[in-house]
Amino acid sequence: MRLVNRSMVTIDDLSNEEIEAVFSLADEMSDSMNGQSNVCQGKIMASLFFEPSTRTRLSFETAMHRLGGNVISAIDVNATSLAKGESIADMARVVGSYADIIVIRHPWEGAAKVTADYAGVPVINAGDGSHEHPTQTLCDLYTLKKERQTIKGLRIALCGDLKYGRTIHSLIYALTRLGATTFLWPGSGLDMPEHIKQKLITEYGADVEKIPADTLPSLLVGREDLAVDTSLDAIYITPSRAHQLALIPDISIPIDLVKEYDALYITRLQKERLAATTEAQDLKRDYPVVDRKLLKGKEFKRTLVMHPLPRIDELAYEVDADPRSMYFKQAARGVPIRMALIALLLGDKEVDIPDKEVPPIQKRAYPLYRRDSGISCPNLNCVSVQETETRYMKPEFEIVTNEPLTLRCVYCEHEVRPKYIASSEWHQGMLKSKKYHSAHSHLVRRIKPENLIIFNSESEAQAHGFKPSNYASKR
Amino acid sequence: MRLVNRSMVTIDDLSNEEIEAVFSLADEMSDSMNGQSNVCQGKIMASLFFEPSTRTRLSFETAMHRLGGNVISAIDVNATSLAKGESIADMARVVGSYADIIVIRHPWEGAAKVTADYAGVPVINAGDGSHEHPTQTLCDLYTLKKERQTIKGLRIALCGDLKYGRTIHSLIYALTRLGATTFLWPGSGLDMPEHIKQKLITEYGADVEKIPADTLPSLLVGREDLAVDTSLDAIYITPSRAHQLALIPDISIPIDLVKEYDALYITRLQKERLAATTEAQDLKRDYPVVDRKLLKGKEFKRTLVMHPLPRIDELAYEVDADPRSMYFKQAARGVPIRMALIALLLGDKEVDIPDKEVPPIQKRAYPLYRRDSGISCPNLNCVSVQETETRYMKPEFEIVTNEPLTLRCVYCEHEVRPKYIASSEWHQGMLKSKKYHSAHSHLVRRIKPENLIIFNSESEAQAHGFKPSNYASKR
Amino acid sequence: MRLVNRSMVTIDDLSNEEIEAVFSLADEMSDSMNGQSNVCQGKIMASLFFEPSTRTRLSFETAMHRLGGNVISAIDVNATSLAKGESIADMARVVGSYADIIVIRHPWEGAAKVTADYAGVPVINAGDGSHEHPTQTLCDLYTLKKERQTIKGLRIALCGDLKYGRTIHSLIYALTRLGATTFLWPGSGLDMPEHIKQKLITEYGADVEKIPADTLPSLLVGREDLAVDTSLDAIYITPSRAHQLALIPDISIPIDLVKEYDALYITRLQKERLAATTEAQDLKRDYPVVDRKLLKGKEFKRTLVMHPLPRIDELAYEVDADPRSMYFKQAARGVPIRMALIALLLGDKEVDIPDKEVPPIQKRAYPLYRRDSGISCPNLNCVSVQETETRYMKPEFEIVTNEPLTLRCVYCEHEVRPKYIASSEWHQGMLKSKKYHSAHSHLVRRIKPENLIIFNSESEAQAHGFKPSNYASKR
Repeated sequence: MRLVNRSMVTIDDLSNEEIEAVFSLADEMSDSMNGQSNVCQGKIMASLFFEPSTRTRLSFETAMHRLGGNVISAIDVNATSLAKGESIADMARVVGSYADIIVIRHPWEGAAKVTADYAGVPVINAGDGSHEHPTQTLCDLYTLKKERQTIKGLRIALCGDLKYGRTIHSLIYALTRLGATTFLWPGSGLDMPEHIKQKLITEYGADVEKIPADTLPSLLVGREDLAVDTSLDAIYITPSRAHQLALIPDISIPIDLVKEYDALYITRLQKERLAATTEAQDLKRDYPVVDRKLLKGKEFKRTLVMHPLPRIDELAYEVDADPRSMYFKQAARGVPIRMALIALLLGDKEVDIPDKEVPPIQKRAYPLYRRDSGISCPNLNCVSVQETETRYMKPEFEIVTNEPLTLRCVYCEHEVRPKYIASSEWHQGMLKSKKYHSAHSHLVRRIKPENLIIFNSESEAQAHGFKPSNYASKR
Repeated sequence: MRLVNRSMVTIDDLSNEEIEAVFSLADEMSDSMNGQSNVCQGKIMASLFFEPSTRTRLSFETAMHRLGGNVISAIDVNATSLAKGESIADMARVVGSYADIIVIRHPWEGAAKVTADYAGVPVINAGDGSHEHPTQTLCDLYTLKKERQTIKGLRIALCGDLKYGRTIHSLIYALTRLGATTFLWPGSGLDMPEHIKQKLITEYGADVEKIPADTLPSLLVGREDLAVDTSLDAIYITPSRAHQLALIPDISIPIDLVKEYDALYITRLQKERLAATTEAQDLKRDYPVVDRKLLKGKEFKRTLVMHPLPRIDELAYEVDADPRSMYFKQAARGVPIRMALIALLLGDKEVDIPDKEVPPIQKRAYPLYRRDSGISCPNLNCVSVQETETRYMKPEFEIVTNEPLTLRCVYCEHEVRPKYIASSEWHQGMLKSKKYHSAHSHLVRRIKPENLIIFNSESEAQAHGFKPSNYASKR
Repeated sequence: MRLVNRSMVTIDDLSNEEIEAVFSLADEMSDSMNGQSNVCQGKIMASLFFEPSTRTRLSFETAMHRLGGNVISAIDVNATSLAKGESIADMARVVGSYADIIVIRHPWEGAAKVTADYAGVPVINAGDGSHEHPTQTLCDLYTLKKERQTIKGLRIALCGDLKYGRTIHSLIYALTRLGATTFLWPGSGLDMPEHIKQKLITEYGADVEKIPADTLPSLLVGREDLAVDTSLDAIYITPSRAHQLALIPDISIPIDLVKEYDALYITRLQKERLAATTEAQDLKRDYPVVDRKLLKGKEFKRTLVMHPLPRIDELAYEVDADPRSMYFKQAARGVPIRMALIALLLGDKEVDIPDKEVPPIQKRAYPLYRRDSGISCPNLNCVSVQETETRYMKPEFEIVTNEPLTLRCVYCEHEVRPKYIASSEWHQGMLKSKKYHSAHSHLVRRIKPENLIIFNSESEAQAHGFKPSNYASKR
């Protein structure tokens, strides 16, 4: 298998088999890590960090040095020409003409995809806003694999800031794809975003079930000291079931909640992502805490305690010496994982993948919606709505489903459900109809995706010269 | 030819032949660029960037890595000991004892010269305030050479911020020396500074001609959409003519303005250089814009579109795919150009220059004016007037001409025309005369440069114990 | 001798013999410095600078490159995950899993020790607050050694900011240990801290003598132009005498103060360390200045002028060309010194030390005081009292002496003299006595260090359930 010249923007850019192959190569890299190889001699990695970071950047740079390659770095937005108003596309094209591979961290969701679109060399996403952080997920999965031999069938609880935690988002996609069952224990107000739960269902065939508060595991109850709001519902995600496209909110089948957890994955509150109006103090009040007391619960007897680091208060230092604590191992394993990934994307290493195995989950292809005017991504942090980027970039969406009409931004993966539609079908040099309809009308199924015109509001439709049809107000 | 141990502070530090030699070596470097050579193995380049930059710093660092050398970097003034009040001279001496070559970018004009004066190792100016950026000019010239085979006789329009754009300043010196004809299309209020036009005349024998507004090429007229002020005069510079030392402001000979341009070089507004009182918004109103519409003009049919990047709004993205667009090539070619230059200055490469060719333009030597008290450079951004630097540095000027008496700062090249003079000639232990005269009197020709004393004002002269002569008020 | 896997947090981490051995290896390194060796090939140095620095960081990075190793850097606290509230211990553990050796500069005193405690790889202190900067001291000593062949018996004046200058602190320990005599000439309000003078006495057997103002050397008098406060007492420190544990404040034995000085070591005012309420302007008024005039004094005839750089106004540029000026040599010698140290700590070089020589001064071992509650370090800049660090770290002190009871913080070495004590001796499952006593009572000698409980105040003792004994108010 050759991964050469591919980019890793989301965890979905590697198939399950390719992830396994990265792990095999990482094992090989670990063996020869003290000392320097010449696998990537003469190659240059650009490390572009537009957000504060020590750990991830140094991990990538260590990996490149251990491979015998060179590193050029730009850190902190204030020290770069982005301060002069430069676009990501320009930066990507220029740096792509210097370096052989680019690693980028950026506060805007989708920035890594734009970099990959323009750089002309492989790009690795080292975190783009609250979107994804796929190499952290590789480290997490690699740790699970080393400790438990397999991911399939593991029971894993994800705790803390599930809303803004990009490591969580990449991780839950991978865990679901690889057959693990996940339990969500968010801090209050920090639930997993709807568009991510939707993607788990539509892309990976997951069941997403709400667990009634009164059947909660000890993970969530009996912790009066933590002031957990027991009215909080937990969420239970199982992979690869048959029924799709539906959230089942009030399933009451008894779930074996007291069975042991294989891993407890906790993250810090991503303060830097909070809207200016949000009170960090409010969110911290009910934030989950992993400490010695919690880990005494019988369901945690052999649970791996994981954290992407840095931590603040959500993971007590008293747990550090506990053999179940994996977080420093996760960090250390980042180096061989990143060595393997860099070497593969640069084509300096290849790996074998047995041909007979077929990926159980295929990436789904949706029709694209891409027009100059009209609807744009509702996520204010999406790269596609930033002033410097709209100079060259159009909003672009996947049409995930027609009922209700749902678009997913190709950059940040947020979803939008527009209200009005029209058709751009032409007949004898004329638009067949200059009428707009409700997106909830049956006409949405009749218009071919390539002819679809979408409006955010009636006034927008009318400004474009469209008049309401009989179906404009029908729901 | 050996360039070893020389510095490159201004584009004039390389002769025309040496520039050609750098290009030959850059061709050689391009061929072997993917992969790593060991040309500079064991050498260390210090990259000192006291202004925001991604592109230029990474280009230099890439070049050094591709040569097999090592890099140490200091970026952003806040992260350095300059914040502790250190002088450039001290920094240069210390870093010069660590590294084999220094690349410096600094907001003060003349800072690169001071670094070169004290470092004891070769220094490359990567941009000093609004003064020069000579390696960008090498990339620009190299691109012209690759696309048009020669610079001589090319017709090139320079557009945008001609006042603060250091890339423009280095470039126009080189283009004029190498025999190109340049047309200036400044944004309003952003004209080429007088001292630069003067230097084009006195150093390179250029004609600087003003073009009446009503004979303007389509470059400037018929662009009502851009709100170009058509009362704006363009300027037309031809190299190597006979008459010197004179600006001819109202020449009316018909110039073939509709002939094709070989290149259109546009720059962004250098917002960071504007005085605090300047309104960037005012300057942006009439700023030239290169877009698809402009390039439809017949004089641009085969025009290379060039930009040093980063761009803001002055160069439309719609032009990117146009085969005339050169800006990403300019950036990419920066790497082999800088590889060649570094290798030459370090003495790790040599180039042949045919002996018979004599540089057509010799650098002129002027008498120097250097005294403790009295006149200082009027440019507030000049390195010679900064508090940290005046501890060890005296103002120093070239006496460019006597009529009128004109001094050029050796650091930033700004000009000053002082008002009063005296002589320091001694006779039998006494100052022959303690009288001061008008700088406009005929006495200015009688006093030998080494005896010249210059005062900014009568009161200053009197404070030094001088009395007015009969020629003190004569003009 | 193998220094492999050891850290250098304070200058005391190397014995006198080991310092000499580093110098021998530095000589060897100097010989082969232009060019690159492969002594540390394949090794990675992490350079973590949480304070502004050019010089020291670039010196370390140059050293590592000259040894053939690689460097990963994190500079400026704002660009790092410490901004996310991460602890030093976590950072140390993670970076220690990437790099083979760590160099750290940090504003908190004791931060380098914490890094060394957790990193699992050798750590070099490149400056921790006002505490120590031991590699600068190696450069200083190496310069003295090169110029004077020996340190023993040299007469050295330390001038300027003796309070906050960490280079001064490391230096005076080493000079005293190695047998030099030092004279202190502080700026007013910038005296050597008491805990350092105490350590000179208790650890190195130094005499610390106050010199009456009227017997001051010309170093201090007759400088009306500097507005030196002649009521200021100088201090005279002689090494290795017998009597200890006492400050002799008013010795009147005539000291040969007009004998020549071997070196004059001046430092800048460490503005960044001043408390917010301190007026830098006040401190600068009487600040010592080394200039041409001062150096005309006969006692400075052959005096080496030294400065750790950067300088501000305290060392005139007019002295730069003087053959006595050593400061640029000090800086240049930092590279071979750091090469030697890095190679030794990484185990890539070894040095021979004759067995027969016994270190004249042994590090003294004191009983440790380490309890959860109660007393904490009074130094607000100590790492042990920072919010992020108290999550995992307890205050820890050496019990230096009982009369009066004196604790020295193991992190920043500041001293504290607590007021109340108790005993934790148990008898048949009960605390023998729940009474507290004055720390000045004779009981302090009766309680075994391991049983000592220390309180800052009576109310604290009472809050822990202790009652006053008959000795609670005795002094």
